[in-house]
Amino acid sequence: MSEPNGSRIPVAVLGATGAVGQTFIRLLAAHPWFRVAEVAASERSAGKPYREAAHWLEGQLPDDVGSLTVQPCDPGLVQSRIVFSALDSTVAGDLEPAFAKAGAMVLSNAKNHRMAEDVPLVIPEVNAAHLGLLAQQRRSRGWADGGGIVTNANCAATVAAMALAPLHDAFGVTRVFVVTMQAVSGAGYPGVASLDALGNVIPYIADEEPKIERELNKMLGRFDGRGIVLAPFVVSAQANRVAVEHGHLTCLSVELERPAPIERLAEALSAWSGDPVVCGLPSSPDRPLVVATRPDRPQSRRDVNAGRGMTVTVGRLRPDPLFHVKYVALGHNTIRGAAGGSILNAEVLVRQGVIGA
Amino acid sequence: MSEPNGSRIPVAVLGATGAVGQTFIRLLAAHPWFRVAEVAASERSAGKPYREAAHWLEGQLPDDVGSLTVQPCDPGLVQSRIVFSALDSTVAGDLEPAFAKAGAMVLSNAKNHRMAEDVPLVIPEVNAAHLGLLAQQRRSRGWADGGGIVTNANCAATVAAMALAPLHDAFGVTRVFVVTMQAVSGAGYPGVASLDALGNVIPYIADEEPKIERELNKMLGRFDGRGIVLAPFVVSAQANRVAVEHGHLTCLSVELERPAPIERLAEALSAWSGDPVVCGLPSSPDRPLVVATRPDRPQSRRDVNAGRGMTVTVGRLRPDPLFHVKYVALGHNTIRGAAGGSILNAEVLVRQGVIGA
Amino acid sequence: MSEPNGSRIPVAVLGATGAVGQTFIRLLAAHPWFRVAEVAASERSAGKPYREAAHWLEGQLPDDVGSLTVQPCDPGLVQSRIVFSALDSTVAGDLEPAFAKAGAMVLSNAKNHRMAEDVPLVIPEVNAAHLGLLAQQRRSRGWADGGGIVTNANCAATVAAMALAPLHDAFGVTRVFVVTMQAVSGAGYPGVASLDALGNVIPYIADEEPKIERELNKMLGRFDGRGIVLAPFVVSAQANRVAVEHGHLTCLSVELERPAPIERLAEALSAWSGDPVVCGLPSSPDRPLVVATRPDRPQSRRDVNAGRGMTVTVGRLRPDPLFHVKYVALGHNTIRGAAGGSILNAEVLVRQGVIGA
Amino acid sequence: MSEPNGSRIPVAVLGATGAVGQTFIRLLAAHPWFRVAEVAASERSAGKPYREAAHWLEGQLPDDVGSLTVQPCDPGLVQSRIVFSALDSTVAGDLEPAFAKAGAMVLSNAKNHRMAEDVPLVIPEVNAAHLGLLAQQRRSRGWADGGGIVTNANCAATVAAMALAPLHDAFGVTRVFVVTMQAVSGAGYPGVASLDALGNVIPYIADEEPKIERELNKMLGRFDGRGIVLAPFVVSAQANRVAVEHGHLTCLSVELERPAPIERLAEALSAWSGDPVVCGLPSSPDRPLVVATRPDRPQSRRDVNAGRGMTVTVGRLRPDPLFHVKYVALGHNTIRGAAGGSILNAEVLVRQGVIGA
Repeated sequence: MSEPNGSRIPVAVLGATGAVGQTFIRLLAAHPWFRVAEVAASERSAGKPYREAAHWLEGQLPDDVGSLTVQPCDPGLVQSRIVFSALDSTVAGDLEPAFAKAGAMVLSNAKNHRMAEDVPLVIPEVNAAHLGLLAQQRRSRGWADGGGIVTNANCAATVAAMALAPLHDAFGVTRVFVVTMQAVSGAGYPGVASLDALGNVIPYIADEEPKIERELNKMLGRFDGRGIVLAPFVVSAQANRVAVEHGHLTCLSVELERPAPIERLAEALSAWSGDPVVCGLPSSPDRPLVVATRPDRPQSRRDVNAGRGMTVTVGRLRPDPLFHVKYVALGHNTIRGAAGGSILNAEVLVRQGVIGA
Repeated sequence: MSEPNGSRIPVAVLGATGAVGQTFIRLLAAHPWFRVAEVAASERSAGKPYREAAHWLEGQLPDDVGSLTVQPCDPGLVQSRIVFSALDSTVAGDLEPAFAKAGAMVLSNAKNHRMAEDVPLVIPEVNAAHLGLLAQQRRSRGWADGGGIVTNANCAATVAAMALAPLHDAFGVTRVFVVTMQAVSGAGYPGVASLDALGNVIPYIADEEPKIERELNKMLGRFDGRGIVLAPFVVSAQANRVAVEHGHLTCLSVELERPAPIERLAEALSAWSGDPVVCGLPSSPDRPLVVATRPDRPQSRRDVNAGRGMTVTVGRLRPDPLFHVKYVALGHNTIRGAAGGSILNAEVLVRQGVIGA
Repeated sequence: MSEPNGSRIPVAVLGATGAVGQTFIRLLAAHPWFRVAEVAASERSAGKPYREAAHWLEGQLPDDVGSLTVQPCDPGLVQSRIVFSALDSTVAGDLEPAFAKAGAMVLSNAKNHRMAEDVPLVIPEVNAAHLGLLAQQRRSRGWADGGGIVTNANCAATVAAMALAPLHDAFGVTRVFVVTMQAVSGAGYPGVASLDALGNVIPYIADEEPKIERELNKMLGRFDGRGIVLAPFVVSAQANRVAVEHGHLTCLSVELERPAPIERLAEALSAWSGDPVVCGLPSSPDRPLVVATRPDRPQSRRDVNAGRGMTVTVGRLRPDPLFHVKYVALGHNTIRGAAGGSILNAEVLVRQGVIGA
Repeated sequence: MSEPNGSRIPVAVLGATGAVGQTFIRLLAAHPWFRVAEVAASERSAGKPYREAAHWLEGQLPDDVGSLTVQPCDPGLVQSRIVFSALDSTVAGDLEPAFAKAGAMVLSNAKNHRMAEDVPLVIPEVNAAHLGLLAQQRRSRGWADGGGIVTNANCAATVAAMALAPLHDAFGVTRVFVVTMQAVSGAGYPGVASLDALGNVIPYIADEEPKIERELNKMLGRFDGRGIVLAPFVVSAQANRVAVEHGHLTCLSVELERPAPIERLAEALSAWSGDPVVCGLPSSPDRPLVVATRPDRPQSRRDVNAGRGMTVTVGRLRPDPLFHVKYVALGHNTIRGAAGGSILNAEVLVRQGVIGA
């Protein structure tokens, strides 16, 4: 263990002015280990005080960050060795490896590198072992010590992965239908136009369904010391945008290799606490998964903040006429499904001594 | 054929003050064949002018109906031989048969009698032939000539049935996953509290999923001269309430007995016009089913009024990794899925000479 | 009179791809006098079929317009002599006069020329006489015969002007407080971000309040043969954005020169039909102003489409403890307050023989 | 001073199952001085565990309260000497005095007794001195020692009162226009139907405007040792319901006796901390009033939780063309405007030694 006990570790946030970037800054404001020392964004924002560059969306902008000068996203200029990336996928493809090459550990939210064979795609409760890929990543890419990329998953895939992990562990998932109802904050800011969102459902989110369908297999796969053996189940996803601020709700129908009564499945979900590596970490919730008891829960607005946005709430477990069980899972898309997930990943790496020494 | 060419046929609306009752009145206001001659509701409203008894929700209350005196729901008092029932299921169980026994043809929206063996559950484009059950219904129940009950389906089941019918006809449906996102108007008025609906998804609608799961088999079943042979496919449904005024959107994943390329499925949906008995009826839309061409359609608010609320819009046909095809269907829950559906059923019966002579 | 009785007059729509441009096209689709012959937009869209250039927002895109090729906004290329302008204020300042100089009658929605001394700012029921400015406009600017600019007002100012006009005529308005609750469609598309609109009120709309405060004086002013004598009342406006699709609702408190009992004021509003020049015009509603009778009306969603969006609904007239009367007025911002208003202005000009011969 | 330093004081919540009652329980869950010992509600709920009697709306129901048995609202049965009342106005008229007579200090949210001459209507930052009425109240009503009624104001009036108090103190308010945009939670649960709220503004809240118009004069009045001398300004209010969960936003136009430049007014608002009696109380926010610096703030959803719902945020101060200043104020209606306000009142009374010894 090597939790920092003195001064907080300086970190940088890339893409700091956008919605996910702001969530990083909000969550890190009172973080016991990390301190936002640098903010970087596109050329348009560079050189301005962060306070002016960002159209702050939620809660109070922390004063100390507000007065930082926004830097360009240049690996030669950013000093921090821990880099949280909220970069858009149009630039993350090149920029994130450039930071890693320069020796930074990049905690990425972008889709670009998630499916690369040597890049861990991590929800630590589910698959912290995948971080073992980092050694190999550094070797194969020739990156300096301390450099690397760890990604977290698509926000909707994250919710589904946490809801599936306990069942997959105990009973073996073979087939999954998932239909999502996703909050507008998942599209960033300005993101979804209000004329599109108000009183409406949009049954389409560009490029979302393939991500959900393939990322689940990787996250629930097994690290065999050299690479990830994909979980062999098949996923069919349908993604919808709904008029909700935060919170992705997913309806799941799951076929199991070793079916069990609903009560046993509920127990497996309730009992699950995931990989003990997260135990007691600053961003780790008391319980990563909660099973709601009321029949009409979880609800997007009412349950999204469970565990300060880091807990996924499941509910409505019932037999499925076609597969074995159908149920509902809800998680906070910009916290657990984005910035909070990255921060938790970084905390695990600090605890493991991989970074931040 | 026996379309009325002179004066309009007087009809009664039961449960006239509620949300569906109001939709009946709105749709019948300019109907070429029917004229709202009587409105009936609970004792609390009886005796009042309709204008005072109803908290009118949408558009203009037609003047002539506004001045009708609300009657109690008493088969001995209501004169009309065509009775549109928007009765609540708590009272429809007894009242609708009482009206039928007294010689009225009851077009019902309640769930009570839908699954009875001798009661047709009808979307005429899909299964007008099921109306053949009426003869048997009258015999078995000993009802007077002209008396009977014809039901329409649950509003979400209606949308799914229309979206599945062409595929079932041409390719044989064997398994269906359906996840719905349903408008608040489906719960009547006052119905869903705004504190429950705003910025929220409620993944639960009491008793809705079983209705969807069993009504589809009956509607897509076959009338063999004596009864309905249920369609043998299995349905798994998950129902959600979303912050939408009107329009139930459903995500479908369908397994087919005789799979075909997506283009062929799309053609089958596009080409479908349903049973020709509806052709040219007053409430019959130009096309019962439209395939949206844009990838992000249908959308609840934007497509709900297609065909004056009588057209179901489907879209996003694409291969399903688990079954054969996944797609989206949207329909207007209080028009096609309730009052408009009943009126279309009545128009078919008039055309067939069963009622209204 | 010179209403066209044969073929429809070809018209152009400038800024045709935006939200107001689309409303023009939607309203003109079945117009008995006008036919959209040309669509023009920014360079980015020019050369594409309209169907591809526009992200169509509401209802069905008319087929014939969909296949038009988008032109650049070049007065030398556009042939039509009647030009509906939905141009953004960043370009309308130069472009609209250029079209007028080239001989086109420009019906403008932009703010740029509204307050110019020789430009009529017209709601024809209120101040059709202001069109008399056109002769002088042509003279002073040296524009060719048929060339000119007629503007309609800010959408919120339009609603207030129609609600104030009958009281000003009969009792003399001296002071007005107006607080607006404006729909998101007033900001165009994509316009207001859903993260800003959902479950929120934004008490700020850039540059809106000064428009309301000064345009009312001009519209309710008097044309004395040479210019507009501004109405001498003072207006204080506060503008808010609310999560409503269409419809600007305004709360008014009004001081009168010659106070009268509320009943008399209500009568004046009910009886008002405005300048008879609009009588029977294609876009003229049966009644420009309706006084709602229920105490909780008008409501944005429920009353916005009164008179196909051309009627303003007022309600809740009651004594004001400070001034004389307070009441509420609602109108459709993209129809009466924008495209529909311009079309009605054009219809008046055709009827007066000013254009379209 | 007599702040409790040992065990927490037992308190009762009347009307505990409703929306305001739940807010009391939520806010008191971690209160350092008070402990919810008793919950009382209507006969329908009495005898049930609170957990079953209440349809819990927001956050987690505290376990210890969940297992309390709901009592009837009977002064003979309730033991606590501090009683928070969320009773409906239909029953509060009789019940609250009955509790006071039995020796309980009733902190009331109901409208019934607010305007009674001997009942303090209190926001302690604004008018803690009004609590001096209690002695007289006890005398005139012959209530036992410790018995009394302290009311807090209508939720919208509370927001306006806090925004006006600093200006009234420093410059003398003479006339006020106030237009409110109120959240649905102000109507309780189920309250506003979603069909009424979604995408809509309802320009009417029964009985709300008279409350705002008269309560402001009492709250901003002066206690002269015997009674309240009403503040002599005149208020005109218009109340609207908007699709917002929590937060009443008000647009104010204010005439001052001693006008001053906007900067001076802003300073007065910024500097205001209200009566020092609240300083450091558990529910007292760091600052009762905050002046937002961004031109588009306060916004309902984004600023409602300032100071854990106890801070009112004002913004957009600018000159008013008719009066002297117009600005916007936002406050949390169920916290500052209801349960939180009552709790703060109780804290003041404890600090003053009036109750809880």
